[in-house]
Amino acid sequence: MDDATLLIIPLGGVGEIGLNMTVFQSGDDILVVDAGLMFPEEEMLGVDVVIPDITYLIENREKVLGIIITHGHEDHIGALPYLLREINVPVYGTPLTLGLISEKLKEHELNEKSTLICVRPREIIQIGVFSVECIRITHSIVDGIGLGITTPAGRVVHTGDFKIDQTPVDGELLDIHRFGDYGEMGTLVLLSDSTNVEKEGYSLSEREVGTAFDKIFGDTKKRIIVATFASNIHRIQQVIDVAAKYKRKVILNGRSMINNSRIAEELGYLRYPPDVKTAMEDLYTLPDDEIVIVTTGSQGEPMSSLSRMAMDDHKQIKVKEGDTVLLSARFIPGNERAIGRVINHLFRRGANVLYEQVSDIHVSGHACREEQKMMINLVRPKYFIPIHGEYRHLVYHARLAEGLNIPKENILILEDGDIAKFTKDSAAIAGKAGAGRVFVDGKGIGDVGSIVLRDRKHLGMDGIIIVLIGIEKSTAKVVTGPEIITRGFVYEAESQEVMDELRSIVIALLGEMEQESKQEWIVVKERVTSALKRHIKKKMERRPMIIPIIIEV
Amino acid sequence: MDDATLLIIPLGGVGEIGLNMTVFQSGDDILVVDAGLMFPEEEMLGVDVVIPDITYLIENREKVLGIIITHGHEDHIGALPYLLREINVPVYGTPLTLGLISEKLKEHELNEKSTLICVRPREIIQIGVFSVECIRITHSIVDGIGLGITTPAGRVVHTGDFKIDQTPVDGELLDIHRFGDYGEMGTLVLLSDSTNVEKEGYSLSEREVGTAFDKIFGDTKKRIIVATFASNIHRIQQVIDVAAKYKRKVILNGRSMINNSRIAEELGYLRYPPDVKTAMEDLYTLPDDEIVIVTTGSQGEPMSSLSRMAMDDHKQIKVKEGDTVLLSARFIPGNERAIGRVINHLFRRGANVLYEQVSDIHVSGHACREEQKMMINLVRPKYFIPIHGEYRHLVYHARLAEGLNIPKENILILEDGDIAKFTKDSAAIAGKAGAGRVFVDGKGIGDVGSIVLRDRKHLGMDGIIIVLIGIEKSTAKVVTGPEIITRGFVYEAESQEVMDELRSIVIALLGEMEQESKQEWIVVKERVTSALKRHIKKKMERRPMIIPIIIEV
Repeated sequence: MDDATLLIIPLGGVGEIGLNMTVFQSGDDILVVDAGLMFPEEEMLGVDVVIPDITYLIENREKVLGIIITHGHEDHIGALPYLLREINVPVYGTPLTLGLISEKLKEHELNEKSTLICVRPREIIQIGVFSVECIRITHSIVDGIGLGITTPAGRVVHTGDFKIDQTPVDGELLDIHRFGDYGEMGTLVLLSDSTNVEKEGYSLSEREVGTAFDKIFGDTKKRIIVATFASNIHRIQQVIDVAAKYKRKVILNGRSMINNSRIAEELGYLRYPPDVKTAMEDLYTLPDDEIVIVTTGSQGEPMSSLSRMAMDDHKQIKVKEGDTVLLSARFIPGNERAIGRVINHLFRRGANVLYEQVSDIHVSGHACREEQKMMINLVRPKYFIPIHGEYRHLVYHARLAEGLNIPKENILILEDGDIAKFTKDSAAIAGKAGAGRVFVDGKGIGDVGSIVLRDRKHLGMDGIIIVLIGIEKSTAKVVTGPEIITRGFVYEAESQEVMDELRSIVIALLGEMEQESKQEWIVVKERVTSALKRHIKKKMERRPMIIPIIIEV
Repeated sequence: MDDATLLIIPLGGVGEIGLNMTVFQSGDDILVVDAGLMFPEEEMLGVDVVIPDITYLIENREKVLGIIITHGHEDHIGALPYLLREINVPVYGTPLTLGLISEKLKEHELNEKSTLICVRPREIIQIGVFSVECIRITHSIVDGIGLGITTPAGRVVHTGDFKIDQTPVDGELLDIHRFGDYGEMGTLVLLSDSTNVEKEGYSLSEREVGTAFDKIFGDTKKRIIVATFASNIHRIQQVIDVAAKYKRKVILNGRSMINNSRIAEELGYLRYPPDVKTAMEDLYTLPDDEIVIVTTGSQGEPMSSLSRMAMDDHKQIKVKEGDTVLLSARFIPGNERAIGRVINHLFRRGANVLYEQVSDIHVSGHACREEQKMMINLVRPKYFIPIHGEYRHLVYHARLAEGLNIPKENILILEDGDIAKFTKDSAAIAGKAGAGRVFVDGKGIGDVGSIVLRDRKHLGMDGIIIVLIGIEKSTAKVVTGPEIITRGFVYEAESQEVMDELRSIVIALLGEMEQESKQEWIVVKERVTSALKRHIKKKMERRPMIIPIIIEV
């Protein structure tokens, strides 16, 4: 490959929210940006997490020089353990990002083998032929960066996830000037965050949430419980600050909340005024108006702290009349019903619940349309690749760029695995790398595929009927059964009639069959299955999975 | 029971969106308002629809005098067939409502046995001791009514679902004056729609959608496909009117779209200007800029017309470059991902897709907070019952009423089955009627309960392992198997190693067992199950359902 060409290959994150991973390749050098997971969609039954297919990286193992992570969200770091287990190369990131990664690698028993290299905004690191500059961005997690990558073919800017927050909680602004420098110097390609392209205008500052907290804390005379993402350190900081103002003490709850806050505090990203932090034990002795609990479970996850409180199943915290619960997070699509259930239960226990629809206690971490435009206008790239979005978001972001006079032919809407090939004055899609979604179920990676999922769906929707028949091979006489076992079909104890009916159908069928065909197990199985299927479809309009088992006696 | 008392018993619709059904009882007379279904939530695996438990009505069968239906949406009429099969009493409704009911009863082969009685706004009908006045409301379906019910204990107003639309498409305004009359005359109880209590201000008029359509149709030079609810006759009328203006012809697609439109047209609720309506065949001959297709599938339902178009699986309609698709409907919570997938696929086929988030092509049919306030202020009831909402909506609606000086003790937040007892100057919750959610799966009503659902969930998430062992009773020798059959666990063809491992574990276990315990099938089953469970949990972190089957040989 010509050294002055550049390949950009998204292995995830274009065509979905999450799964973010982009490969940059020039000559024999490969740099990977982000290694994120995606949470399973509802039809991915039993799947715990989804990770990108990294076959391309494994096949080019010796070329991979490093992985740089833009920030510490799961959709950017969650696939790292799986990737590092295959390809052990240095991981670059800012202090908090590395803190969160380190915790994750410990869980996977990979931390001792891994090399984590700390980078800072405006620092330039050399990774093979790539000069990578870290550029401060603002987002719903602290210490996030975008990247300015100088390659033999030209400069590339990768925004990571970003918003342009003029009043971030830690005062660390998005480095508008540096993005502008890349515009001045001339940039070949911009890859930019598409998540919120459906939202007009500007995102609200994280600071606004603090203002809303202040008003609520000032008006509340009983306990306050705040549920938010454990990674949203700024949000937690604002709770701490407002708690201090109103002489409340902060109790952290939930494993990830406690871990992440500890890491952030150790690294200096989370600061407690004196006497604000306290332990769970004080919950029972402090007066109600001096308590704030910060907890996980803002997405209605069934095993989370907040869900347990709502179900009155939490070991330490009983929700009581007069408690105020703040859900300070977005309702992620797909989770609305679960979140709604938690809210309803909290109300039933006498709590007052505030959430995004009725209160200003959440702002998005992603750029809205005006901010996306500003980024494009700052960097003024020759080519534009919308990333981090479902296909429709990429299309809308592409159109937005077109509206800013990026020529349509210079905008590439890529899908996972597309190999985009650039020289300093050309761009083309030049093939396809292996790409896709790999399902992780427990410790199994990729062993659950479409057939298993199809069976799970079938089993889940309609249940299973096992038909056991013992046949004497020589005479074709039925000597045991038919015995019918079902799960997820009807409640057997209350459906004796149905069970008897199924049995008689099998008996009648076997009675009618010729001896020769009865000696062919495969024929018997087919006939039994289709007779039961037909009957159940007609009588009950259901389609359980039917498994006939013939035992040769 | 004292004739001057009134019982109000919601059998559904308080604590959930959908399942609407309210019982009014005075002396020995029972009047039922609405008989709606609810669509299953994601954990109700394999359930087709959910209907209210009507045990209370069946137990008081001889008292039930009639059912009045406020409008023709599924969450108000969908449980009628199940109710009428148990209790055949007259059904009252306006013409379009009865038209839709009639169609539904035909499907259930109940139409000949049923008595449908047509009512009109401002008409008063006597049903036992109840004088029921129909009061025109506006909503996302035409011909909806609220009810003014005069009972021995006092007057009751039931809003049904409503919004206050000042410019409805058919010019038929909500009868503000008549609701006000009930305020003037004195009303004991108001039951009012809580659905949109989280939304500030006023709902937009349906007419606004027409304006948005006009702009889009005026700008579009290729085919237009509009997906909306088949029951939203006003929406369809607006498509027809704008189509006529821009010289396009309208093709209806999807079974319910064709049926509902036919009924509405026959009853005079849907009107076509000359030469606007045309048949599917003309799709192939008309120029692109003369075509509008109106179709179902706005919720991303996998078998719907729009989904089929998106998947290129529609018999007649192929989506092509330049098509404009309008999703003119709300994204119902829980459906966002399915809808998102359809939109993404349509974009991949080159269509332009407009939807609620990016275009003003949908308005809600439910009152926002200011309209809800107006309703309360018009009727000025002594007692207030928020209905039609999840628990949190009822709480917020109760607070809204409190803000309008309805005393807190006069507001009843009921849950399904609560018996609210009223006299002319008292109200109390006086017990509980049997109530709940009954699952309909195919033709089975109520035979799928929590145990079956739990099994379905288990099967769906983790799959099943069947272990077949043939044992000779007298010697306890294993003569056949162990044979392992799995579904939804791992893909057997690619997981021979796992299968062999499971088999060896069973063989080892049986080898270690004493002869006596091996002769106890129940002991063998328990041991096999727990050995496999332990192994799979440890090695794979999975929990498949395990069914050991011992065959006595």
